[in-house]
Amino acid sequence: MRAVVGIDFGTESARAIVVDARDGRVLGSGVSAYTHGVIDDRLPSTGTALGAEWALQHPGDWLASLESCVREALAAAAVAGADVIGLGIDFTACTVLPVRADGSPLMLESAFAGEPNAWPKLWKHHASQPQATRVTDVAAARGEAWLPRYGGRISSEWMLPKALQVLEEAPAAFAAADLIVEGGDWVVWQLTGQFARNACAAGYKGLWHKREGYPSDAYLRALHPGLDGFYAGKGGGQAVVAPGARVGSLTASWATRLGLSPATAVGAALIDAHAGVLGSGATTPGALMLILGTSTCHLVIAEHEHLVPGVAGVVEDGIVAGMFAYEAGQAAVGDSFAWFVDMLASADVQAEAARRQVSAHDVLSERAAGLRPGETGLIALDWWNGNRSTLVDAELSGLLVGATLATRPEHIYRALIESTAFGTRVIADALRAGSVPVTRVVAGGGLTRNRLLMQIYADVLGMEIEVAGASQASALGAAMLGAVAAGADAGGYGSIEDAAAAMAPAPTERYQGDSGAHGRYDALYALYCELYDTFGRHSTLMHRLRALR
Amino acid sequence: MRAVVGIDFGTESARAIVVDARDGRVLGSGVSAYTHGVIDDRLPSTGTALGAEWALQHPGDWLASLESCVREALAAAAVAGADVIGLGIDFTACTVLPVRADGSPLMLESAFAGEPNAWPKLWKHHASQPQATRVTDVAAARGEAWLPRYGGRISSEWMLPKALQVLEEAPAAFAAADLIVEGGDWVVWQLTGQFARNACAAGYKGLWHKREGYPSDAYLRALHPGLDGFYAGKGGGQAVVAPGARVGSLTASWATRLGLSPATAVGAALIDAHAGVLGSGATTPGALMLILGTSTCHLVIAEHEHLVPGVAGVVEDGIVAGMFAYEAGQAAVGDSFAWFVDMLASADVQAEAARRQVSAHDVLSERAAGLRPGETGLIALDWWNGNRSTLVDAELSGLLVGATLATRPEHIYRALIESTAFGTRVIADALRAGSVPVTRVVAGGGLTRNRLLMQIYADVLGMEIEVAGASQASALGAAMLGAVAAGADAGGYGSIEDAAAAMAPAPTERYQGDSGAHGRYDALYALYCELYDTFGRHSTLMHRLRALR
Repeated sequence: MRAVVGIDFGTESARAIVVDARDGRVLGSGVSAYTHGVIDDRLPSTGTALGAEWALQHPGDWLASLESCVREALAAAAVAGADVIGLGIDFTACTVLPVRADGSPLMLESAFAGEPNAWPKLWKHHASQPQATRVTDVAAARGEAWLPRYGGRISSEWMLPKALQVLEEAPAAFAAADLIVEGGDWVVWQLTGQFARNACAAGYKGLWHKREGYPSDAYLRALHPGLDGFYAGKGGGQAVVAPGARVGSLTASWATRLGLSPATAVGAALIDAHAGVLGSGATTPGALMLILGTSTCHLVIAEHEHLVPGVAGVVEDGIVAGMFAYEAGQAAVGDSFAWFVDMLASADVQAEAARRQVSAHDVLSERAAGLRPGETGLIALDWWNGNRSTLVDAELSGLLVGATLATRPEHIYRALIESTAFGTRVIADALRAGSVPVTRVVAGGGLTRNRLLMQIYADVLGMEIEVAGASQASALGAAMLGAVAAGADAGGYGSIEDAAAAMAPAPTERYQGDSGAHGRYDALYALYCELYDTFGRHSTLMHRLRALR
Repeated sequence: MRAVVGIDFGTESARAIVVDARDGRVLGSGVSAYTHGVIDDRLPSTGTALGAEWALQHPGDWLASLESCVREALAAAAVAGADVIGLGIDFTACTVLPVRADGSPLMLESAFAGEPNAWPKLWKHHASQPQATRVTDVAAARGEAWLPRYGGRISSEWMLPKALQVLEEAPAAFAAADLIVEGGDWVVWQLTGQFARNACAAGYKGLWHKREGYPSDAYLRALHPGLDGFYAGKGGGQAVVAPGARVGSLTASWATRLGLSPATAVGAALIDAHAGVLGSGATTPGALMLILGTSTCHLVIAEHEHLVPGVAGVVEDGIVAGMFAYEAGQAAVGDSFAWFVDMLASADVQAEAARRQVSAHDVLSERAAGLRPGETGLIALDWWNGNRSTLVDAELSGLLVGATLATRPEHIYRALIESTAFGTRVIADALRAGSVPVTRVVAGGGLTRNRLLMQIYADVLGMEIEVAGASQASALGAAMLGAVAAGADAGGYGSIEDAAAAMAPAPTERYQGDSGAHGRYDALYALYCELYDTFGRHSTLMHRLRALR
């Protein structure tokens, strides 16, 4: 029996699973929280205070947790190290750190230990917003062809704004850095001694395109003279490798630390959400993966590249080598349901929840399940945290229409769920209108446990929804990367598609869209789209209202 | 010392006050609940079950409560019956009953005791909606000139739909009735032996116009052949008298029952809300009276008649003889705040209210008082129960825009209050645009106790708001009617204006509009008007959404 290891590097901890390479069965797992967690108050080195919106991590935590959780998973699986043929990782992104040419983090040097900009900036570090605004504005002013590929706006979470912040706020650290690298690529580098940028993070967060490369030096100079040559050097330079690539094998030192063979293949890293697509088996063209959580991430694989207005990213080799992966998002999904429960769930809802020892969500979902589509007389626009796709407008806001004195909490709760389903349908329709087929829907994430929500989504979309079978889909996807890196000859696979076909478990559940409900939702969806166009495209009222705050 | 008695006939009870005719000082008061209250389940006579939306009363209750509360008030005031020079009443409207030529109610006869349509229909009897729809539709189809005076729609609460329901459902009762009369006019008839229709109820609820009279027989025949001659007979016929008119003096029998002199002058009745305008002293042209309760009633006196689009009633002699009284309304005001507290006030709001032994309204108002205009980023359209003026559209619904994950309960509560203030400003602006001056604002009703609401209204309107000083404004207004009926020679007054000037107390409080806040609200009001026009005039979305229920 051959086994592979997958490690999912999250925001607070790393999780490892050891799986059977033949069928993806999980043999053992382990988890290890990062010692320093999210660093958003003071540097642990010097106590230096951090500003608002800062979020850093310690790279030593990643390695310590890696060793700990892999050893725990191997022990639980009772698999011999020699039987592990490959190892893969997924990582939050864009989480980036400045390093020396040998991969040594700048912040480990005494000269830079007290410099916040020398530390790894976690994905949710938003203090680069001023830089992100300029990255967008300069690109828009110059008519840069790559800007529309990202929906016309560059996020503060991405690579270039974060690098520009280092340059502007800590020029000495910027100068001393030979490379600024993704955390996932850095961990693979540590494990193998080889550095490569993974196409997924480079494409979605680093402005890289397989055929057109990176933004030009002319653009970089217009943004900041000190960025001239950035992509030939610190920010690019090395090969960008596709998912499933074998970056190398374990160094002797890491083989010993993990109790594995030095022959163990190590795959290129992948962003955590994208690895979840592999683990969920949604790797065939036309499969739309919904990762339903506080927000929703939509990922779909296609054979061709098209520019879909308002869809924020399309990356060749983004998830499956040789294929294009499209990404879209809804900024507030579970977050808006939680907002409703926290802010507005009435005393009787809370009392019933307490009495029955269930959550307020359960009470509201049960009550709402008895309602027909349209019966509430309500429609909401699901923009409680702006619109990420297809309008790409963070200043839009939530709207509820149709309230009467008979409107009850469960009516609004259902309308909020419906609004997020309509928002997903807008994205699916936009993809199709942009010649990207959507023929299958696979759902993952915590909200798949809400049966009412799943049925509403199936009814609104008028499609079957498969609930992904993997309980740790990202870690399983990472294990697939290890299996492909090892190759078919070693007991692994020749391609991601083959690995996913063999290793992804069957759906735990399938929700069928009801045709009667779908017809009623068609009528409501038409009204939703009217509101969507009115407030999203034709009227600037939400912007003006926000400006009055 | 001369005294007058005012009696306010409400929905559940009658209240009497005895006041000093010189200055309106309240000397004593009494209250008496109606024995049968609102009859909406079964007839007390035969147990006959009533349908949905039915609401009846027993006329015997009015007389019994009248005697009881007047005697209680006289005793409390320690005023000798001989010192009472006049008596006036106000009454809910349109509350109508079919009677014989001598005033005897049909439902007291054994043949009709079990016939619901023979009983007095209370103002909030809404089972005449099918009839009301036809009253409107036939008038619209014929282009009846009087229809626009009522905002283009006749309410199920009014006289003609209620009479038509009697005709259609109980033709024998309709045939047996010599008159169909307002409850207020019937009580005055009982007290004096004289029947007169009061101009206020006839004008606002009975389609009467001082110079143009009633709708034509041609219209009535088109509506229903059995209505031919209705206004020459059962529904009109007698003189219509202006407020302050003396209908007669107490019959010997009633003088005895009340312990008053048979010389006591009895004035024509007035609708309860309109009597409140007198009691509040808002009798000068340009004074806008806001009666702020579950809904809001707006009344303003003017010297000239204009057709103001969407303002549902203008009646000459409606409140002050010789003047025109305009009426508008907002259908849900306090009701929408109560809805929010009942349905959506979160557990922490309720817990704080319980701990501090205050209402959830107090907690929300306190929290909301710390916010600047616009700070919530929210705007609502105050249509939780449709729009009564200026759109006159019951199928409109509530809207909230601007919600984010940071939106708190007190933000929404404040937005709801603001939305009702904007709605009032729309009405004031429509009156001014229609050449009806609005130069002063007087507020009454239960919501005047909410200081946050009062300040928001003053800031939104940019005007001082006087809070009416009378605690029982309608009863005081009724007393003024008695004082004018008695006349100046008897120690009363020659006109309503004179009575109000002498007898209405000074405001208890004056709220000044803050110019900075008013400026900020101007910007928000512009956005409110955009939404108002979008959903109220240009788009039928709310209607289509409602149709999908």
